[in-house]
Amino acid sequence: MNTVVAAPLVPVLAVVGVGLIGGSFAAALKERGAVGRVLGVGRQAATLEQALELGLIDDIVTLEQAGQQADLILLAMPVGATASILAQLRPFLRPDTIITDAGSTKVNVVEAAKAALGDRIGQFIPGHPIAGAEKTGPQAAEAGLYKGRTVVLTPLDENPSAARAFLTRVWECCGARVMVMGAQVHDTTLASVSHVPHLLSSVFMWQVASAHDSDLRMALAGSGFRDFTRIAAGSPEVWRDIFLANRSAVLSELQEVKAALSRAEQALQNADGTELQDFLEHAALARRFWGSRSGLT
Amino acid sequence: MNTVVAAPLVPVLAVVGVGLIGGSFAAALKERGAVGRVLGVGRQAATLEQALELGLIDDIVTLEQAGQQADLILLAMPVGATASILAQLRPFLRPDTIITDAGSTKVNVVEAAKAALGDRIGQFIPGHPIAGAEKTGPQAAEAGLYKGRTVVLTPLDENPSAARAFLTRVWECCGARVMVMGAQVHDTTLASVSHVPHLLSSVFMWQVASAHDSDLRMALAGSGFRDFTRIAAGSPEVWRDIFLANRSAVLSELQEVKAALSRAEQALQNADGTELQDFLEHAALARRFWGSRSGLT
Repeated sequence: MNTVVAAPLVPVLAVVGVGLIGGSFAAALKERGAVGRVLGVGRQAATLEQALELGLIDDIVTLEQAGQQADLILLAMPVGATASILAQLRPFLRPDTIITDAGSTKVNVVEAAKAALGDRIGQFIPGHPIAGAEKTGPQAAEAGLYKGRTVVLTPLDENPSAARAFLTRVWECCGARVMVMGAQVHDTTLASVSHVPHLLSSVFMWQVASAHDSDLRMALAGSGFRDFTRIAAGSPEVWRDIFLANRSAVLSELQEVKAALSRAEQALQNADGTELQDFLEHAALARRFWGSRSGLT
Repeated sequence: MNTVVAAPLVPVLAVVGVGLIGGSFAAALKERGAVGRVLGVGRQAATLEQALELGLIDDIVTLEQAGQQADLILLAMPVGATASILAQLRPFLRPDTIITDAGSTKVNVVEAAKAALGDRIGQFIPGHPIAGAEKTGPQAAEAGLYKGRTVVLTPLDENPSAARAFLTRVWECCGARVMVMGAQVHDTTLASVSHVPHLLSSVFMWQVASAHDSDLRMALAGSGFRDFTRIAAGSPEVWRDIFLANRSAVLSELQEVKAALSRAEQALQNADGTELQDFLEHAALARRFWGSRSGLT
């Protein structure tokens, strides 16, 4: 006797790159019963085996099989591989398959996707879940990663509205809040709140580590140093690619930060306590307000 | 019938300022049975009452009483009040009382102490426990705050060696590791690993909050932003005083960071992926190494 079961939101999901981002996406949809079968694609057999053992994916498949079988494909491998993966997928894609990605920059991803997919570009909806960066690999994946987090979609004119609505529903199913904007706005905004801080943190860490008395400095570094430099530990390859991909926005935003730094430096130079305190107070109040609303503390 | 009990390491401790730093010091020594009685001094009656209720202190006293009764006095109020407090204490100090402090800068504290204490300066041993900054007040105090943390002492030539040894033992009793160095070395080192990051974090936060599209930026800010800007939420008054007190060291260290920033910016300008990656890798490896050794992750 068969029981009639409602079809899940995503009958077949394929995840290219089964690390923290892809693995957590699969885990979240599985937890909600929103996915039928999850196919894993990747370059490293050991990582795929691990994802299989952890139950994040149900099968290890080729790109060709993923293209033929999946209703939704999430690209969650390093962003530099986007063009090549899409070009390989294209010949096998069903016309109704939706592809999205998780890259930290969007203008370059859109360019790569247009070049690779040609007249199939309408099937690709660019995305960026703003979550998780410290940990990596399938063992770090967790169903709750996207709960309360923001996922940015930067849809293309070619994307059918039903496809956009579907992808929004899928991310909401993971507990995320979906925001829609243009790829350029995404990239300049992320240059400000993600890429520039990463650069500053890395530059600072580099400078401390390069000092002749770096051992002493490190010995006296406390919890403020720990927080400020945490992002500097991130993957050099991943961040090199982000900086190169979003180069002009990062450089331009950096000018603004340097102008603000000059102002603070001048106040300090002048031993102007009132201006210094105004400056620090504005920053402190803004940070406390953000902290109370972000749900990230 | 009386039981003979060994005298505690600190028969009578006085804490001036019973917030996180002073309260945790008292709590740590109480937990180890290393203190007989703890006297609390402060400007705000409510804070003192709270410390009393929490059992951090046993009595609320005046500075005069603290000077007359205490074997050890910890100054844990804002550093700007050091000269005034010491001048008020001086007439009542017993010749064997040891005073120390917890200020984030040391050169200015030493100057203030010399001016205030005159020929009693040998009784003052400057110190700086590198712990806790995010939370404040007696309710945040905890006996474990100093466990595994570094406490810097910058002793003066006038301090008797027995007094230095005693204070070292007291801090070790709180679980801390004591490092001894000159006040100037302390201040230049802290300028690097504490004051400059605070300035950069505040400047960055100020710049994001001042942008016309700050709401959008804040909405896309993730965990990297959270960590990088956490210190910017700190007390504007406290940090204004730290910057003013350690002005020249902070300004000079800032030049080094700006030089490093120019280097990274140039690599990005040139789209020089190899140099960018070298830079990021050096920073990432240094941060990971520090993280694995600091006990602060």
